[in-house]
Amino acid sequence: MRDRTPFPLNAWYAAAWGHEIRHALAARKICEQDVVLYRRSDGAVVALEDACWHRLLPLSLGALKGDDVVCGYHGLEFNSAGRCTYMPAQKTINPSACVRSFPAVEKHRLVWVWPGDPALADAAAIPDFHWNDGTEWIGEGGTYYNLNCDYRLVIDNLMDLTHETYVHAGSIGHDAINDSPFEVTHTQRTAQVTRWMLGIEPPPFWAAQLGKPGLVDRWQIIRFEAPAVVVGDVGVAPVGTGAPTGDRSQGVNGAFLAAITPVTENTCHYFWNFVRSFRTDDTNLTRSIQLAHVNDGKGLYDQDATVLQAQQIAIARHPRTPFYNLNIDAGALWARRLIDHMLDAEQPLASAQPGIAAE
Amino acid sequence: MRDRTPFPLNAWYAAAWGHEIRHALAARKICEQDVVLYRRSDGAVVALEDACWHRLLPLSLGALKGDDVVCGYHGLEFNSAGRCTYMPAQKTINPSACVRSFPAVEKHRLVWVWPGDPALADAAAIPDFHWNDGTEWIGEGGTYYNLNCDYRLVIDNLMDLTHETYVHAGSIGHDAINDSPFEVTHTQRTAQVTRWMLGIEPPPFWAAQLGKPGLVDRWQIIRFEAPAVVVGDVGVAPVGTGAPTGDRSQGVNGAFLAAITPVTENTCHYFWNFVRSFRTDDTNLTRSIQLAHVNDGKGLYDQDATVLQAQQIAIARHPRTPFYNLNIDAGALWARRLIDHMLDAEQPLASAQPGIAAE
Amino acid sequence: MRDRTPFPLNAWYAAAWGHEIRHALAARKICEQDVVLYRRSDGAVVALEDACWHRLLPLSLGALKGDDVVCGYHGLEFNSAGRCTYMPAQKTINPSACVRSFPAVEKHRLVWVWPGDPALADAAAIPDFHWNDGTEWIGEGGTYYNLNCDYRLVIDNLMDLTHETYVHAGSIGHDAINDSPFEVTHTQRTAQVTRWMLGIEPPPFWAAQLGKPGLVDRWQIIRFEAPAVVVGDVGVAPVGTGAPTGDRSQGVNGAFLAAITPVTENTCHYFWNFVRSFRTDDTNLTRSIQLAHVNDGKGLYDQDATVLQAQQIAIARHPRTPFYNLNIDAGALWARRLIDHMLDAEQPLASAQPGIAAE
Repeated sequence: MRDRTPFPLNAWYAAAWGHEIRHALAARKICEQDVVLYRRSDGAVVALEDACWHRLLPLSLGALKGDDVVCGYHGLEFNSAGRCTYMPAQKTINPSACVRSFPAVEKHRLVWVWPGDPALADAAAIPDFHWNDGTEWIGEGGTYYNLNCDYRLVIDNLMDLTHETYVHAGSIGHDAINDSPFEVTHTQRTAQVTRWMLGIEPPPFWAAQLGKPGLVDRWQIIRFEAPAVVVGDVGVAPVGTGAPTGDRSQGVNGAFLAAITPVTENTCHYFWNFVRSFRTDDTNLTRSIQLAHVNDGKGLYDQDATVLQAQQIAIARHPRTPFYNLNIDAGALWARRLIDHMLDAEQPLASAQPGIAAE
Repeated sequence: MRDRTPFPLNAWYAAAWGHEIRHALAARKICEQDVVLYRRSDGAVVALEDACWHRLLPLSLGALKGDDVVCGYHGLEFNSAGRCTYMPAQKTINPSACVRSFPAVEKHRLVWVWPGDPALADAAAIPDFHWNDGTEWIGEGGTYYNLNCDYRLVIDNLMDLTHETYVHAGSIGHDAINDSPFEVTHTQRTAQVTRWMLGIEPPPFWAAQLGKPGLVDRWQIIRFEAPAVVVGDVGVAPVGTGAPTGDRSQGVNGAFLAAITPVTENTCHYFWNFVRSFRTDDTNLTRSIQLAHVNDGKGLYDQDATVLQAQQIAIARHPRTPFYNLNIDAGALWARRLIDHMLDAEQPLASAQPGIAAE
Repeated sequence: MRDRTPFPLNAWYAAAWGHEIRHALAARKICEQDVVLYRRSDGAVVALEDACWHRLLPLSLGALKGDDVVCGYHGLEFNSAGRCTYMPAQKTINPSACVRSFPAVEKHRLVWVWPGDPALADAAAIPDFHWNDGTEWIGEGGTYYNLNCDYRLVIDNLMDLTHETYVHAGSIGHDAINDSPFEVTHTQRTAQVTRWMLGIEPPPFWAAQLGKPGLVDRWQIIRFEAPAVVVGDVGVAPVGTGAPTGDRSQGVNGAFLAAITPVTENTCHYFWNFVRSFRTDDTNLTRSIQLAHVNDGKGLYDQDATVLQAQQIAIARHPRTPFYNLNIDAGALWARRLIDHMLDAEQPLASAQPGIAAE
């Protein structure tokens, strides 16, 4: 077990869907920090430390007065930069009285918060999540899970889709996933797993989307962006129509979008969406795809939630680390290496070990 | 964080309302100690350690046999002084077999227990709670809260009533509380905050009690008696009728009575009453004032309970001590100093620090 | 408090009733170890570590494929010896990949598992529980409790039946239990308490079983077999018909059968049965005796469960060990000595103390 937290702080994390944040106080915990979120009158989102400077009552239990927050206990007021602007029964305000203000930016339909050093926050470094913008790609989105697991278990899960065969048998699982070769590439900030399954029977979900008989070429191109975003470019096209060489025009293409945000070492938020670039006007299809993923415990993501949380409980009982790894874990291992590099930059370990060892 | 417990043991604490203790066994935890309470045939209240000498089963799961307690597991018997008087299947009783007996006295409608050294227990030192006797002052009483917070947070709350403006807006809150000067005085065992608000509009609750139009003089004279009792002398009188100089005859006067008893470091019992010296025969008024304070989550005390428990959770997450303080905290700071003096006398700290610092 | 676990590992523990284990995966925790149990096609019971070698997901969340277990996350397969026989997306299987296999034997209607060193497991050492075989002695059995207490508290309870007078007043309790002498004998592996109550009024339960008026001789011969099995030979016969000297032919004889299995230090499984050798064809009697013991919180065992769990909570609050003991604890003390001898053999203590002291 390492002593440092398992998540870097100098990073943008998804804190909320944009539509969740209105001109009202909303509490959310991010990377062990209690944050109160709200939208100012000019539309900008604000993220402040959710604890009054005076006696620590969560500011989210107070109220907005214009764009300032009034504490619900003794009425101290803080502006959207976190500076105290009113104290009860005294005229002089201690100039150091303030709560922490976190950089916060709304982009790609999500509110991103930077829990680390504000001087390092650069909005240009917000993860690429453009599929979520609602223009070319269509999906409902708007849902998130509170998962009782280390955020890295979610990344492990998404970076190796062989689990689909077992966790999601009957919908997107397929033996071909196990049998097909894959390639792992990486940059300083991203890791990518590319798997092509050529000339296979499509699994039920994709057969229904394609609506054409016959064998298909199926692709899964999973891209991790450190520390906690995964986008999966997935789809099928009739075999021999050129998808592997770049022509997907005869096929159907979707993308799963996952922004995972640590809450504590063993819990996380999981913002997700599944979008597609075909039949984008078909709102019934949009709805049914959403239900296929999240449906009161019966959807694909619900199946993952069950497995991930059971795995976390098992890890707590059997603290066997590093895990034993298989070939299929190569993508997840690169993702963890990139996270470890970010952690090393923030919180160097005395005797830094990779912490992972491929079998 | 200090290593010692935050409550002195050599003190009288309210353990129960008198009417709660009958000729039957009742369990209650006080200052980290499990206590079984009962009333003897002669009316005296008894407080014993709630764990059998033999195998620790709570005696409160047993039964009374006359004025002795019979353990519900193997039948050991203990008299009201805690001495074992019967052991199963043996004639000789180990002379050291006993459970601890705590000094216990019924006074001012409450049962007071002394969890510390019995040799130091002096019934004359029971806090002054005469308002509760049911003679001159009238109120229902009889209710208590189990609060998930450090007992000192309740004292902080009561010693600074500016919080009424925010926590109790719409009933007893008023901007004048924030704007009016106050005075703090103290003795070796008590601290008092006196605030007069002269010529103000009465807040809704007091306007209704007074039943006369026009401006009022309002007073809040809050008296803390270490370690854990607070009595607030509160009321209003028509402006200019002499209340500030001692003639309250034209006004209405109430008192809130709070006896707070630590259960653990972060939980407490909260015995309270609100009594008045006007229209004392009006039982409908008595009932409606009770409901204004405690009403299934909607009363004044319920509002405090919400804030206090949220504050405790925040303290556990953000262990920032000492707190930052405002001018309004002067009374609470004196209360904490008096508690610290009692603690120092019992459990000296190596490097005693005041632990509090006024802003 | 000792640092070692309070239960020996080199021992057979009851893990399940035989009828509970079918050709399906069943999770159960035994001595701090998560175990998955199932029955092979040939009828043999299998007990494997309930955590996949790869990423620790409980195998009990997976599925059986023939007699092998398939992990529900990535499809690794393990045979009934725990060896990995399939890994996804790779042909070479790491030869060290396996999960732990525990010796498991079905005997006396129970499945017994050996959580310690498999090389030491000898099926001949399975505790004598022949009363449970369903031949000479009849009882329903099949029920177990999950008790929130140290398994040794259950043994203490069973080894001293004076508690019946208090915990089970009105059914099997009787003052004579307290007044009658008893004898304690022991071997290297067993301890026995023998108590004869001669010429007494039978308690209500036994009077009903005997169905004859008049005084009786009652016996309680309780036999502990280390580390966690207790069998009680109990009954009554009309006074003077020879029961104390060996002729029980005029009486009625029952046996309580208790197999207790540690789950954690403070929780245990409790498999039990009450069997009898009289009126063995009377199925209504079988049912009513079962209900007398376990009946939705109102039976004899339910009364014990209440006391045992309250005692465990008290021990956690008052960690006073060793307990004070009475004469009546002599049998329980021998049982604990035998357990301690097993523990010493496995995990020697630096300064071994008996840990118990008779009063």
